[in-house]
Amino acid sequence: MIVITQPNATEEQIQRIITRVREFGLEAQISRGASRVIIGVIGPEALLREKPIAAMAGVEAIIPVLKPYKLAARDSRGSSCVAIGDVRLGEHEDAFKPRTSPYSFQGLREEGLRFLAEARAKTGLPVVTEVMDPRDLSMIEKYADCLQVGTRNMHNFSLLKEVGRSRLPVLLKRGFSATVYDLIMSAEYILNEGNPNVVLCERGIRTFETAARYTLDLSAVPILKSKTHLPVIVDPTHALGLREFVPQMCLAAVAAGADALMIEVHDSPEMAKSDGNQALTPEIFAGLVPRLRAVAAAIGRAL
Amino acid sequence: MIVITQPNATEEQIQRIITRVREFGLEAQISRGASRVIIGVIGPEALLREKPIAAMAGVEAIIPVLKPYKLAARDSRGSSCVAIGDVRLGEHEDAFKPRTSPYSFQGLREEGLRFLAEARAKTGLPVVTEVMDPRDLSMIEKYADCLQVGTRNMHNFSLLKEVGRSRLPVLLKRGFSATVYDLIMSAEYILNEGNPNVVLCERGIRTFETAARYTLDLSAVPILKSKTHLPVIVDPTHALGLREFVPQMCLAAVAAGADALMIEVHDSPEMAKSDGNQALTPEIFAGLVPRLRAVAAAIGRAL
Amino acid sequence: MIVITQPNATEEQIQRIITRVREFGLEAQISRGASRVIIGVIGPEALLREKPIAAMAGVEAIIPVLKPYKLAARDSRGSSCVAIGDVRLGEHEDAFKPRTSPYSFQGLREEGLRFLAEARAKTGLPVVTEVMDPRDLSMIEKYADCLQVGTRNMHNFSLLKEVGRSRLPVLLKRGFSATVYDLIMSAEYILNEGNPNVVLCERGIRTFETAARYTLDLSAVPILKSKTHLPVIVDPTHALGLREFVPQMCLAAVAAGADALMIEVHDSPEMAKSDGNQALTPEIFAGLVPRLRAVAAAIGRAL
Amino acid sequence: MIVITQPNATEEQIQRIITRVREFGLEAQISRGASRVIIGVIGPEALLREKPIAAMAGVEAIIPVLKPYKLAARDSRGSSCVAIGDVRLGEHEDAFKPRTSPYSFQGLREEGLRFLAEARAKTGLPVVTEVMDPRDLSMIEKYADCLQVGTRNMHNFSLLKEVGRSRLPVLLKRGFSATVYDLIMSAEYILNEGNPNVVLCERGIRTFETAARYTLDLSAVPILKSKTHLPVIVDPTHALGLREFVPQMCLAAVAAGADALMIEVHDSPEMAKSDGNQALTPEIFAGLVPRLRAVAAAIGRAL
Repeated sequence: MIVITQPNATEEQIQRIITRVREFGLEAQISRGASRVIIGVIGPEALLREKPIAAMAGVEAIIPVLKPYKLAARDSRGSSCVAIGDVRLGEHEDAFKPRTSPYSFQGLREEGLRFLAEARAKTGLPVVTEVMDPRDLSMIEKYADCLQVGTRNMHNFSLLKEVGRSRLPVLLKRGFSATVYDLIMSAEYILNEGNPNVVLCERGIRTFETAARYTLDLSAVPILKSKTHLPVIVDPTHALGLREFVPQMCLAAVAAGADALMIEVHDSPEMAKSDGNQALTPEIFAGLVPRLRAVAAAIGRAL
Repeated sequence: MIVITQPNATEEQIQRIITRVREFGLEAQISRGASRVIIGVIGPEALLREKPIAAMAGVEAIIPVLKPYKLAARDSRGSSCVAIGDVRLGEHEDAFKPRTSPYSFQGLREEGLRFLAEARAKTGLPVVTEVMDPRDLSMIEKYADCLQVGTRNMHNFSLLKEVGRSRLPVLLKRGFSATVYDLIMSAEYILNEGNPNVVLCERGIRTFETAARYTLDLSAVPILKSKTHLPVIVDPTHALGLREFVPQMCLAAVAAGADALMIEVHDSPEMAKSDGNQALTPEIFAGLVPRLRAVAAAIGRAL
Repeated sequence: MIVITQPNATEEQIQRIITRVREFGLEAQISRGASRVIIGVIGPEALLREKPIAAMAGVEAIIPVLKPYKLAARDSRGSSCVAIGDVRLGEHEDAFKPRTSPYSFQGLREEGLRFLAEARAKTGLPVVTEVMDPRDLSMIEKYADCLQVGTRNMHNFSLLKEVGRSRLPVLLKRGFSATVYDLIMSAEYILNEGNPNVVLCERGIRTFETAARYTLDLSAVPILKSKTHLPVIVDPTHALGLREFVPQMCLAAVAAGADALMIEVHDSPEMAKSDGNQALTPEIFAGLVPRLRAVAAAIGRAL
Repeated sequence: MIVITQPNATEEQIQRIITRVREFGLEAQISRGASRVIIGVIGPEALLREKPIAAMAGVEAIIPVLKPYKLAARDSRGSSCVAIGDVRLGEHEDAFKPRTSPYSFQGLREEGLRFLAEARAKTGLPVVTEVMDPRDLSMIEKYADCLQVGTRNMHNFSLLKEVGRSRLPVLLKRGFSATVYDLIMSAEYILNEGNPNVVLCERGIRTFETAARYTLDLSAVPILKSKTHLPVIVDPTHALGLREFVPQMCLAAVAAGADALMIEVHDSPEMAKSDGNQALTPEIFAGLVPRLRAVAAAIGRAL
């Protein structure tokens, strides 16, 4: 942590800041500039986080240096692989296998989950379903292969803790106004409860642009992969809300390094229970697959 | 609802849209323009909401006409008044009375709630506290006068439903990336469960501007008051994150028509458990009160 | 244009609106719903644009139906090709040829332009340079092969008009807070002055996300290509401001359908006059080219 | 300036950074933390600005400490006063006098300016008019009392330089996606050319919220006034685009500390040449004035 003083901070104020730092067993290294003093704080910063040095008289700014997340951070161990049923997600995996949509049958609750489990039995596809209430978790765990935390719950800390205690992998969707940093911090919350299987999902952010439903932030893919060891997937369907542009953004997501895609496909979009304006038809999807495969190969990934 | 066709929609596509509308017992009024057909749908639109007409071939856009919220909408009954303990919020009320902070003692759970209830016994101040997990509600209801739904849970529909079934009033904070419309829809969720006592709170939105922590959207105050009958309060402390500018924005919020303010005050900000950088000292607060009173009087409101 | 009345509009107000529409020789088709009247205006809407029907008593909303741009709009003629020197940009062209940076030597004015022209003579690379002042245009036209309008001038209508009268092609960069629609309207301004050679450039938009300098909006690529006939290129270097993630976003831009890329390369980034933090080294660039070629081939484009 | 190294920076890289700093005659103070080295750079930072230390191997981040603007910065001299005709703007001035709209007659060029000058002769109101092209400046200077730089030109550096050389005061409107910092830097550009009379104008920023045309950022008022010595005015009319909410935001702007307001008034909004949906009628305006006066008095300002 670096403490920067105001240009007009008094010597007494500066000494009080230094004293506070040292009271916590931390070292304070002082650099006196032309108009400010810079106090480098050396030691385990977490000690200081609760103490609002920023509120002390004479302080202009506090600059954290260490990343506040540890479990999610990329380090020497390289990238992680997460298994969802028999589909494995991660840097060295082939992840462009179809699986059932988490969005179908939302309103049907346990009956809906039973339908999904039957579909899995027939097709071998794993079941991913959204958890919206911590009280539903034990029921969902009986049927699903993967829990999804939706964009509207990315900041729901009660829910994050609960799925962090589950044995199932968690697909964590980025809040539509969450920064990359916020998303990593929410993953850290889950990891911290003991569940190591977290998959991050970019699904569009809210900006001033209204041409599509959200602005798909594909730069988040390489940024998340450089900062964390977690698999990163992309959901162009919900980001755009318009089927017309979904194929191009699927191709772009793979080229940007996504470990998997979430694509909504419906054989009769105009009869879909949830809004069908965005789902691909099976024909368009089938035409897209070989191009996805070719782009993956072009960047050196098997499919 | 208005359906607008694409310029190259075929007559067959247009007839199929009209047939679909009529299948639901709705009337379709057709206006043929130079390049598009406009189909006005007359009747209870809710019937159509689930049916994705937007996904039909030949449709360019769907424009909803009726407001999708009813319980929150301002109508001939005028504005509502909500009581929190003995403080009454609403257009014709004096609401600038102090009350305890919902943020104190968050980590202490039931013990913290007992402290707050003791403080109420001594001071007469009502207790507002944040609910973050539906499972905590029954415990909180034993001690609190008002439930708060925080900015990170404004879209947590499980929680909204739960507080909608409580006998306590609900202070609903705007999500930091929620539109005014989203906020009203979340209030509608609570009202729809039978709890009529909802107070809306503007607390800043996330924008590209970084000079303050969030951008306080004061225009939301008159807009919310014109579209709904609910009391609207403002929380400049958390919006700005910088105590220096809080007084001016408190004054501006009152001038914009806010029914109450939420102001963080701490007698020793640098020792506060949560970040103290933003809390007013009691001295600054005391100096602010007469100016708030004068601004309220200037726009014709008693204090 | 569709006029929607307020639920409480009086019959007199409605008749006044209809009369106004008809005064301009336009047809008004009336649909009476349960609570509102919808007036479809048939005829050349431009007649009405100047007359603020929206300000008339009883009007709730005005919905334009026709696109307000014509010259930029994609129509039956398909996509355009723009030549910059001997490089041709467009859907059926090979555009991944290097060319000189428009950013070098900005401060040197005419002397800088002479350097660039010399570089062209030696290498055959075309010269693209930014115009910031309409008074510089005649000087720049003597040396450059293409004019660039920068992100900060996308809304500078005086400059747009001026480059619209030039014989040189124009590379129009999206304003960092311009919508896709705004960008098309600025292109329309240039086209309307008689210059048909406009290339659109996505270069990142300003959002709440701070992990990269701007949020590269790759969805804009297929959207612009579906709405206009103009070539669309992408500038990942300036969008990200961080060289580390530029290669992945170059690949993603090609996969999304970009007609060309603008990539900053510097053989000694730490000595660059403008900020070198973002430029690729020639080695990284050389390693990227075959992957770009492979992704282009994967989506069926030659390189 | 503070240079922070990457956790895995080698000793050789660190030494190279230190050497570079010292080559420029600056002092480097080194603090070695657990995982990073922090290099405080002491001396005139401007020397380093051009040298991209950020691009050197081993550097994680560069944190500027000094404010990069000087002329606009608030210092011991206190706040400035700017005269527009006989209206004086600034902290100790009465600025709620009416003046003519800069928007009238835009399309009429010199003829329009003559109309405005005639209106001034009859009414005594000063004339403020927008400059959009540096070539128009000498003509405009013959008629106007104040130059306006519009929101779309706040980043047009050619124009900023030109008005910086004028003898007339400049009303600088915030770009709709400019940060407070960007606005101050644009003012610095004008001041740096020798024109000391700059008035800043908050007029709404582009955010995800669509309930009003822009989000009026009233927090910018106290922030700008604390960081600069320049008068700050607010334009609620263009920010909101909806007349219904303009009066409340005028009151809020005064309460927030604005030195003046820009309010569009039209005696027949539905006949206005530019969009009339937002202009106040003279009756509403007349009703607003005493409330503005009362709010100004409530915060201790004369009117």
